[in-house]
Amino acid sequence: MIRTDERRPTSEGVRAAAEAVAAILPPTPLLPVEIGRVRAWVKADNLQPIGSFKIRGAWWRLSSLAPEERAAGVVAVSSGNHAQGVAWSARRLGIRATIVMPHDAPQVKLANTKALGADVVLYQRPREDRDAVAARLIAEQGGTLVHAFGDPWVIEGQGSAAIEIAAQLGRSPSRIIACCGGGGLAAGLSLGAPESAVHPVEPFGWDMVGRAMAAGTIVHAAPDAPKTICDALQPTATKPLNLAVLIDRAEAGVTVTDDEVRAAQRFAFANLRLVLEPGGAAALAAALAGKVPLDPDTVIMLTGGNADPAAFAATIAGSD
Amino acid sequence: MIRTDERRPTSEGVRAAAEAVAAILPPTPLLPVEIGRVRAWVKADNLQPIGSFKIRGAWWRLSSLAPEERAAGVVAVSSGNHAQGVAWSARRLGIRATIVMPHDAPQVKLANTKALGADVVLYQRPREDRDAVAARLIAEQGGTLVHAFGDPWVIEGQGSAAIEIAAQLGRSPSRIIACCGGGGLAAGLSLGAPESAVHPVEPFGWDMVGRAMAAGTIVHAAPDAPKTICDALQPTATKPLNLAVLIDRAEAGVTVTDDEVRAAQRFAFANLRLVLEPGGAAALAAALAGKVPLDPDTVIMLTGGNADPAAFAATIAGSD
Repeated sequence: MIRTDERRPTSEGVRAAAEAVAAILPPTPLLPVEIGRVRAWVKADNLQPIGSFKIRGAWWRLSSLAPEERAAGVVAVSSGNHAQGVAWSARRLGIRATIVMPHDAPQVKLANTKALGADVVLYQRPREDRDAVAARLIAEQGGTLVHAFGDPWVIEGQGSAAIEIAAQLGRSPSRIIACCGGGGLAAGLSLGAPESAVHPVEPFGWDMVGRAMAAGTIVHAAPDAPKTICDALQPTATKPLNLAVLIDRAEAGVTVTDDEVRAAQRFAFANLRLVLEPGGAAALAAALAGKVPLDPDTVIMLTGGNADPAAFAATIAGSD
Repeated sequence: MIRTDERRPTSEGVRAAAEAVAAILPPTPLLPVEIGRVRAWVKADNLQPIGSFKIRGAWWRLSSLAPEERAAGVVAVSSGNHAQGVAWSARRLGIRATIVMPHDAPQVKLANTKALGADVVLYQRPREDRDAVAARLIAEQGGTLVHAFGDPWVIEGQGSAAIEIAAQLGRSPSRIIACCGGGGLAAGLSLGAPESAVHPVEPFGWDMVGRAMAAGTIVHAAPDAPKTICDALQPTATKPLNLAVLIDRAEAGVTVTDDEVRAAQRFAFANLRLVLEPGGAAALAAALAGKVPLDPDTVIMLTGGNADPAAFAATIAGSD
């Protein structure tokens, strides 16, 4: 077992997070999907108000802050979806939010984050270390760091999806296939659905969670890691808090290629009439590519729909 | 009151249809939408298994057939979504379905209808009269005509959406804004939501329902009617069965332009992460263009998501 000195996320915490989330957000739809000859399920968290599941963890973290912490504001680091989750929650709670985002984040995510009232600070990826930028901001202006995945409340909040799924399905799913960046969702689902097999799916070359689980220790992204269209799924490494849960409870990681992700986006467009961004289609891509076994109690997480219009147009027109 | 000798659709029939639909299809999501400073609702019937609300009326019609009628099969006429609704229902009930479709129907709709096991007979639009083609087929091979909108069961089935909406909202909506072709949905909603204002929305130049309501009699499309991107909303005329209900209960019709429809498709893509075909975005287009008043109890029907990939790509990329 990997040791950390921090507060650890728990199954009880996931259940408490699910109650807090249910108080402000209706459950996202659990929709049937036919893949080959199997009728499984998709959990459409791309239909959350900010277009991604990240609203869950952000809400649980920010709503758990003490009054004096709320008054000091929050600082978050994000490629875009966590940013919107924190900005949405902060606006609703009257908390000042500063978000550190990469200079090359999708325009739609930058614009949405600003529209939600957050202060956005850009950093140069990969030259600058985003955690260092955030630490400097907190040293300067105070506030609480809301990490995108290595935070017990954030992990518990993301896991609230598992509680909704079990209620909608009427039983524990056999397995949950989850898009995976830093491992916040996969860890949360593992705690929230202890009877289910949880399969993290990462972009090819960016399987920092799968490799860390196999190695039993944190693994960092190679400087020459291949490009991926999954902008939401490229953390430089997972965190001990996530890895401890995942080694204990999750299935081995799976990777998907850009072409498999695009095929999943096209499938969701044509068969589910849903818009998925690349990172939000990774779990579906693994299911369609036969990389995870499917059965009628399998749930595939659709985690984000903040797609760049030009890139999405090219993908569904089949020109890339 | 317009007289017909046919069975007339009723509010009781809509409630019975809603029970039949609920037995096989979970309610489609009612999702919040912010338009200007108003938070209203969208009813996402584009998320039905066939990608449109048409599954409702087709299921109620086909499941109401007597055993000897089922054995003789059904014949339907449709530009694509009713076709899929009939084909889906027929397959599930073990009924032979023949669908008369225009030669220029979107490929996605032709392919989906065939994939559902229906026999497809093409006719040349506008040279051939589709109702005559259907009548000839029935004379030759027998079977029951399942009209796309001028049928009491079809009208009642489409109205089942109103029963779902009231249950999801916890009260009657103030108004329902509905995409309108022949007037099946608008008539069904009028019967299913008698306390709500129902606003039919039609493409510019193809407002055969709005004009008929104003004239008090059936009005036929002009031979030189302008082109519209709303392939699902171009009937040549409404039917007396629909007009009788609509004159009695619905609000005056509203029209939307192709540009307004495209803007609504882009809005749904970026803000709701939903895929809408042009005809399925007409009601949202009217709401966004300020052509119907909005309030927090307004529900906007999103009626279809079977979008042609190339056309959708061009629309969201903003190149047309």
